[in-house]
Amino acid sequence: MSKPQKLSFAILGTGALGGLYGALLARVGQDVHFLVRSDYEQVRSAGLKIESPIADFEIPVQAHDSVHSMPQVDVAIVAWKTTANSALKTALTKILKPEGVVLVLQNGLHVEADSAAVVGAKNVLGGCCFLCSNKVGPGHIHHLDYGAIVFGEYAESRAGKVTPRMERLTEVFRYAEIDMTPSENLTLVRWKKLVWNIPFNGLSVVLGASTDKIMRNPATRKLAEDLMWDVVHAAKACGTEINSSHVEKMLEATAKMLPYDSSMFLDYKAKRPIEVESIFGNPLRAALAMNFPPAKIEMLYHQLRYLDQANRNS
Amino acid sequence: MSKPQKLSFAILGTGALGGLYGALLARVGQDVHFLVRSDYEQVRSAGLKIESPIADFEIPVQAHDSVHSMPQVDVAIVAWKTTANSALKTALTKILKPEGVVLVLQNGLHVEADSAAVVGAKNVLGGCCFLCSNKVGPGHIHHLDYGAIVFGEYAESRAGKVTPRMERLTEVFRYAEIDMTPSENLTLVRWKKLVWNIPFNGLSVVLGASTDKIMRNPATRKLAEDLMWDVVHAAKACGTEINSSHVEKMLEATAKMLPYDSSMFLDYKAKRPIEVESIFGNPLRAALAMNFPPAKIEMLYHQLRYLDQANRNS
Repeated sequence: MSKPQKLSFAILGTGALGGLYGALLARVGQDVHFLVRSDYEQVRSAGLKIESPIADFEIPVQAHDSVHSMPQVDVAIVAWKTTANSALKTALTKILKPEGVVLVLQNGLHVEADSAAVVGAKNVLGGCCFLCSNKVGPGHIHHLDYGAIVFGEYAESRAGKVTPRMERLTEVFRYAEIDMTPSENLTLVRWKKLVWNIPFNGLSVVLGASTDKIMRNPATRKLAEDLMWDVVHAAKACGTEINSSHVEKMLEATAKMLPYDSSMFLDYKAKRPIEVESIFGNPLRAALAMNFPPAKIEMLYHQLRYLDQANRNS
Repeated sequence: MSKPQKLSFAILGTGALGGLYGALLARVGQDVHFLVRSDYEQVRSAGLKIESPIADFEIPVQAHDSVHSMPQVDVAIVAWKTTANSALKTALTKILKPEGVVLVLQNGLHVEADSAAVVGAKNVLGGCCFLCSNKVGPGHIHHLDYGAIVFGEYAESRAGKVTPRMERLTEVFRYAEIDMTPSENLTLVRWKKLVWNIPFNGLSVVLGASTDKIMRNPATRKLAEDLMWDVVHAAKACGTEINSSHVEKMLEATAKMLPYDSSMFLDYKAKRPIEVESIFGNPLRAALAMNFPPAKIEMLYHQLRYLDQANRNS
């Protein structure tokens, strides 16, 4: 593979996801700027330390503790939690080149809307990450497994095809050994990911249970499956058809997984805000707008709203 | 009120409910035998101590640590949790006179079935208690508020009227200052109580929240109301019509209540088994048998089954 063009990147949120992908891009010579919060001093002085099936490496990086020291870039990667999106407007206004593009790698449905409100929908790409990665210390990321990104155009006018800029970005990411796949249907990709996220993120928080416990108990395995069907039916009401074999595939894959605490469960246990609105509220509202009430998603949403609030007040 | 006839009673389960009603009956001269578990020694030697809006009193009682020392009685009151029902067969076979009657004061739907399986449905009465009472120490019961019993015939062939034995029993209980009301429709009484028990018992356990917290948060208040409607619709599918004003009444009454931990929440926190099957499983199965799936009750049922099991294993 010949070396692709050099692009400038801003990583908004140097956590388990942004830190990993950013470091992999920097490692192959891309111009990557990291916005770093709590562990800024460590990352500025010692760089990032990555342990990954792709490679174990340490790399000095261009760290910033504020967007105001960052240059304008070709690609801004939104990698923080949606609960931090109030900072998006200042950030994107400041750091994106006029012809730049935003790649939103957040969980949930319509999570690109906040970025689109700042830079316009036609400048926004969205992607789902299938990644098992944890930040284990300041500037120290442990990438355990998986790592694929499936992404596509967000604007309706650009959906339905793989655009040239998607091809260029895919080339850049793949050269960095990131398993990136362009999709003509971002909405389908997002709904399909929700088929897993809604039951397992939600139930792990409400029941205080890892995926293996949910799958081993017949009552909660049934409930996880019921919730998956709620997502499939909600997607259908919104015009997106998910093949029904996807439910069986997700259940089988989860049953085979090692005991796993979802990132939402980890956030909850650490008393951080959880992404209730993007993962549960947005799909629920989308379905309700089409006169389809997904009862179990709705119930989970209300339970999580309560728990999130009580958790942060405690 | 002239003194009513003297009957013999067996109280199966001398807790906050059985201990209170039994002591009130003994206090006015009824022949009451108490089956006592953990605090048998205390109750045998020092009797029961009652603090109640009705009266504060201490009373020596006929305590038994096994049904085998109990005489045959006119009325057996089933006052333990449904989770202890495996002991019913031995108990009722031993202690009920041939012409005796069983009064089932347990929570849930079709909770009389276990007793009816032993003594025949025609010998069974069922009742709902609207009672706020706690056992605060060995043989020591603190009755806080309310206390009414609404009861009726369990056998279909006897439903629809107030039978002579119901009138006699009402007279005996009222003489003991227990607010007892006969009902021609026990099934309606049970479903109406579930309109409260299903949302507030269930959500208090799943969310770790007292009634006031559930009512103050708009998300969970909405969810409690949704669950109430699920119960109303499930009841209707099963042939029992609940006036829709009952939902509003229950919500208003709960909003006005002092912060309150449901007895199910107290059991859960003490790692005792909770009555998942009688309060959630039985109404759910009754509705499903009529081809009505109450989605939110179903979800709560599966969540509680998981939590109850995990709680007892921990």
